[in-house]
Amino acid sequence: MVNYKAILQYEGTRYRGWQTQGNTDNTIQGKLEALLTRMEGEPVEVHGSGRTDAGVHAAGQVINFRSSCGKSTSEIRDYMNQYLPEDIAVLSVEEAAPRFHARLNAVRKTYAYRIWNSPIQNVFERKILTQVEEPLDVEAMQKAASYLEGEHDFKSFCSVHAQVETTVRTIYACIVSRREDEIYIRVTGNGFLYNMVRIIAGTLIEVGAGKRQPEDIIKMLEATDRQSAGPTAPAHGLTMIGISYE
Amino acid sequence: MVNYKAILQYEGTRYRGWQTQGNTDNTIQGKLEALLTRMEGEPVEVHGSGRTDAGVHAAGQVINFRSSCGKSTSEIRDYMNQYLPEDIAVLSVEEAAPRFHARLNAVRKTYAYRIWNSPIQNVFERKILTQVEEPLDVEAMQKAASYLEGEHDFKSFCSVHAQVETTVRTIYACIVSRREDEIYIRVTGNGFLYNMVRIIAGTLIEVGAGKRQPEDIIKMLEATDRQSAGPTAPAHGLTMIGISYE
Repeated sequence: MVNYKAILQYEGTRYRGWQTQGNTDNTIQGKLEALLTRMEGEPVEVHGSGRTDAGVHAAGQVINFRSSCGKSTSEIRDYMNQYLPEDIAVLSVEEAAPRFHARLNAVRKTYAYRIWNSPIQNVFERKILTQVEEPLDVEAMQKAASYLEGEHDFKSFCSVHAQVETTVRTIYACIVSRREDEIYIRVTGNGFLYNMVRIIAGTLIEVGAGKRQPEDIIKMLEATDRQSAGPTAPAHGLTMIGISYE
Repeated sequence: MVNYKAILQYEGTRYRGWQTQGNTDNTIQGKLEALLTRMEGEPVEVHGSGRTDAGVHAAGQVINFRSSCGKSTSEIRDYMNQYLPEDIAVLSVEEAAPRFHARLNAVRKTYAYRIWNSPIQNVFERKILTQVEEPLDVEAMQKAASYLEGEHDFKSFCSVHAQVETTVRTIYACIVSRREDEIYIRVTGNGFLYNMVRIIAGTLIEVGAGKRQPEDIIKMLEATDRQSAGPTAPAHGLTMIGISYE
């Protein structure tokens, strides 16, 4: 058995998220496992670097799976792309160390939250941008974002029904930039709690709209209470950008 | 009655093209006329700068229509954007000269044909890019494109069932450029025959693939025969970029 690592992209619009919920469900993991099981002739389990919610996209999701199909890595890639639907693409397949695990070995993850800041709809990228009609103050958003950097207890930025051992995470960088009508939030950390990036985005949008001050982030972090932070921004503005390993 | 000029964008994927074919059809013109007729309380006719085929997009389609609604131009824009579907957006509305006509007064039109030149599907822009898997030679395509510039009889680049007085047109510029895996063909002319940009794109793709030489364009123009040029490239790679007036 060879352990393979693959990088893939998907537009999450049509899917019920990453994680499989049965045998024939409409999830990314489910599509991949069905496909690889057909290639292999017996059940194949696919490990993703992290779950994405329904409607969330990926530009660089990393997976691993084991196979003894004997195909070359480019043959596996071509096989997958041949049978995957048009909104899922495999960028690369390579052989990985036998114990490589896409989720357990991930040391750094980067997400982007993309905002279309205009009263006028973006017709071409509407499925990967969240529209905010009122003008947002990007400088205030950037200042607020800087308070999120570092090691903190992000309990206020975690949906309440999540069960995790610790809500302490490290954000290495949280950058807010504008290019014409698009505001791009890029956040890199050692891991993210459930809905954490979307709650960060929702909070930064409130800062940009003047409903919160940048310094309020400090109080939110101290509160360790979900209600202290802003709303969870819509799923479709979120894209998993990439995963780093040791 | 005030004559209004408006600029709009649409992703053409869901529509049967620009031109209305009845009262309740699924065309861009039909959607706009239904909306403006509701606003006005009586029938409104919308003139577009040019028809786009089913599946073709627009980043800067220009229209004009007459109304005595009494609303300001920004109120009309907001009204339209409020009721238009999410794949059509009005960028601007302004008062035009009483005799301004979006099609008859157009002096220059620009289209883009976008190619995703990779064996791997672009999941995010798949609806506005045409995928070509085999590597294309952009230098050869650019050289071929340069032979199209100037005033020529473009009969070879016109679908046969088109009925026009003359097939002579002037192309001011036809530029082919690559940015990573995308090849972008931008063509500006004083007007285009039916399917002309898509036939140009299909021909340039054949040149890029080495099936034709750049110099073959000269013979194709001389032949004034549709069969001498390449195939009509798919509609969904084509976008109307903008229209210029005197």
